[in-house]
Amino acid sequence: MRTVKLALFGLGTVGSGVVKILQSHKEDFRRHVGVDVELVACTSRVRDEAVNLGIADMFTTAEAIFDNPEIDIVIELIGGTGFAREVVERSLRSGKHVVTANKALMASCGGELLALAAERNVNLAFEASVGGGIPIISPMKHSLISNEISAVLGIVNGTTNYMLTKMDQEGLTYDDALEDARRKGFAEADPSADVDGYDAAAKIAILASIAFNTRVTIDDVIPEGIRSITPADLVNAREMGYAIKLLAIARRTEDGIDIRVHPTMLPLSHPLASVNGVYNAIYVIGDSVGETMFFGEGAGSGPAASAVVGDVLEVARLINAGVGPIVGCTCTDSLPIRPMSELVTKYYIRLSVIDQPGVLAATSAVFGNHGVSIYSMIQRGSFAGSADLIYVTHRANEANMMAALKEIAKLDTVNEVAAIIRLED
Amino acid sequence: MRTVKLALFGLGTVGSGVVKILQSHKEDFRRHVGVDVELVACTSRVRDEAVNLGIADMFTTAEAIFDNPEIDIVIELIGGTGFAREVVERSLRSGKHVVTANKALMASCGGELLALAAERNVNLAFEASVGGGIPIISPMKHSLISNEISAVLGIVNGTTNYMLTKMDQEGLTYDDALEDARRKGFAEADPSADVDGYDAAAKIAILASIAFNTRVTIDDVIPEGIRSITPADLVNAREMGYAIKLLAIARRTEDGIDIRVHPTMLPLSHPLASVNGVYNAIYVIGDSVGETMFFGEGAGSGPAASAVVGDVLEVARLINAGVGPIVGCTCTDSLPIRPMSELVTKYYIRLSVIDQPGVLAATSAVFGNHGVSIYSMIQRGSFAGSADLIYVTHRANEANMMAALKEIAKLDTVNEVAAIIRLED
Repeated sequence: MRTVKLALFGLGTVGSGVVKILQSHKEDFRRHVGVDVELVACTSRVRDEAVNLGIADMFTTAEAIFDNPEIDIVIELIGGTGFAREVVERSLRSGKHVVTANKALMASCGGELLALAAERNVNLAFEASVGGGIPIISPMKHSLISNEISAVLGIVNGTTNYMLTKMDQEGLTYDDALEDARRKGFAEADPSADVDGYDAAAKIAILASIAFNTRVTIDDVIPEGIRSITPADLVNAREMGYAIKLLAIARRTEDGIDIRVHPTMLPLSHPLASVNGVYNAIYVIGDSVGETMFFGEGAGSGPAASAVVGDVLEVARLINAGVGPIVGCTCTDSLPIRPMSELVTKYYIRLSVIDQPGVLAATSAVFGNHGVSIYSMIQRGSFAGSADLIYVTHRANEANMMAALKEIAKLDTVNEVAAIIRLED
Repeated sequence: MRTVKLALFGLGTVGSGVVKILQSHKEDFRRHVGVDVELVACTSRVRDEAVNLGIADMFTTAEAIFDNPEIDIVIELIGGTGFAREVVERSLRSGKHVVTANKALMASCGGELLALAAERNVNLAFEASVGGGIPIISPMKHSLISNEISAVLGIVNGTTNYMLTKMDQEGLTYDDALEDARRKGFAEADPSADVDGYDAAAKIAILASIAFNTRVTIDDVIPEGIRSITPADLVNAREMGYAIKLLAIARRTEDGIDIRVHPTMLPLSHPLASVNGVYNAIYVIGDSVGETMFFGEGAGSGPAASAVVGDVLEVARLINAGVGPIVGCTCTDSLPIRPMSELVTKYYIRLSVIDQPGVLAATSAVFGNHGVSIYSMIQRGSFAGSADLIYVTHRANEANMMAALKEIAKLDTVNEVAAIIRLED
């Protein structure tokens, strides 16, 4: 059994978790997996964490890692698309296998990086880039390959799911939920990547690429976040039998890939509706397998490190077997992205209006003029001359809906279009 | 790309599903997976189904398949441990890879068969033996290998889960629920394998073997089924905040593997509690990944065939790569099975008693004498001189509990110990 040598870039939350697993389970991996993996080098912005982890002797420079021909696998846990990209590219070019947790990188230039890995006959593994510790990329690239996948729906951002759960279960406002998430370490100082949907957009781009065998990048997804959701929306939804989740959706349609990230009302009976807190879940529909769901912790040191080390061991198995990559890039088709304007779905619309006669007639007329048919309307919370009109529509075209809302927003009696939440059922 | 040739034993529900996938997706597999698989031979008890599927020209004898050196992969979908075992053994001996959905076979002699496969340097894949189409064996043998798994809890029998769901949601009796399941094709004429827990026992033996890296066979599991569960138990459970599920449980403990199959009360907030109908789900807890769950259709033609063909394609990939098995048997430890008598858990006990003064005191005294501490007691359904006493206990030792119940059953005022349901929380 030859020793497979590892180098680690990045000693943050996930990196520390990786080091701890490698330290505590080395002997288990020899016995159960039949591989001997050894961390021989690490680097990071600061040396402190290497000292804390007892691996100060391995701390070195990036250049020393690139130049070391003995290193078999580079683990990239820097994040982002700057230096991390250079690390991945230089490692692959020098014939090293790469394991990464970098969703931004894989969602923006995964195609190029996988092509480079194939050219050099090395593995580029990225299970940890989506869903933390949940096995999802491997099942889609292996167990489920006999299926034509028709849809992937995911709760893939733990921060926003935690906030929405708090708002739903405890009536917290968006601001209070964000503050609570920050205190617990679930939200960053600048929460934009999470609350505005960019993190989820990167993840669904990666999942869609694998599910539909076609390259989808983060630029193909226009995310909507949860900033406009209020506790009242969650109460209204629940009364109607729905939960509100920030859903990442990718569907195969006859007109191309339908891909989006936005707050979504899901029937309470849907398996995703009861996925709460920082948990993630990915729901996959295949033509043979039917409906499947993969659930677990979507973030945090342990879960993400579990996926990273899983990838490392898998690559080490292949190295031991003396074989090159078995599965590389699976984007063998080239399907178009269907424009969001072509979406047809049901909508929950909350309008903040001036509470006076004629407002309902005026707003309803605009919907009618744009071919948007109303399923139900309720009025809520008249206060200080303002009220909320809450419409639920039948299936309507997105372009028509947006045109209607643009016109409604201009009405003198309308304060604002306060919430747009699409329904899945 | 060389053509990988397949032979299929068994043209029942799953076999037909496999043929249909291979027929409809052959070109997809070439393009997306990079393998060319071709069914060249099949056999079954009767030829009719081969005619229906348009593959009558491939219908042949078992001997012809064993003797055909061109066949790369044998798919065994006969079931049981008789001829199926011969098929698997002879195929492996002649150097053919084997894909099987046979839980009984893998749970009874999986160790021997995997050893034989290793000896001949061929793959023996069995994803479809547990959880229908749900990827669970592959994730445990690949993505989750960086974890020490502490527990696997599964709803792995769709028939009983369908029946319990009907009893819970519609108040059906056990007999009516069974009749309903039969009408829908979810239960067989002789339902014993399902309702008495043998099917679930085989599946948890397979999962435990992989999770804990130690061989567990179906003989290590003493299953309890759902025959004694009544709609009243389900109502009582729900009032207490629990769902009743036929749970297959395997836990790593300091005293060995705790493995069992029995009706179990699960908190309604547990992810498994809302898995209803014929759906299956397997809940896996690892030291790094934390809590994960894999959900999907646990039976039926499409889902099981999805897993079978997934295994076929995976083996074909390895054949294409010119490499032997990467992962074989993972039972590298030899852990003892902890006797059921050493279990410590909470219990829900329903006693049917004669409704007269002193019964409660008499039964409670017996529990006390055996060191079983009571958490709550309610009396229900006094009718024709009989009543139900429903006890919920604090954590108690199984041996003590069984001794107490044996004594209670002998009391003149006790008709029977009507239900024993263990609690998980």
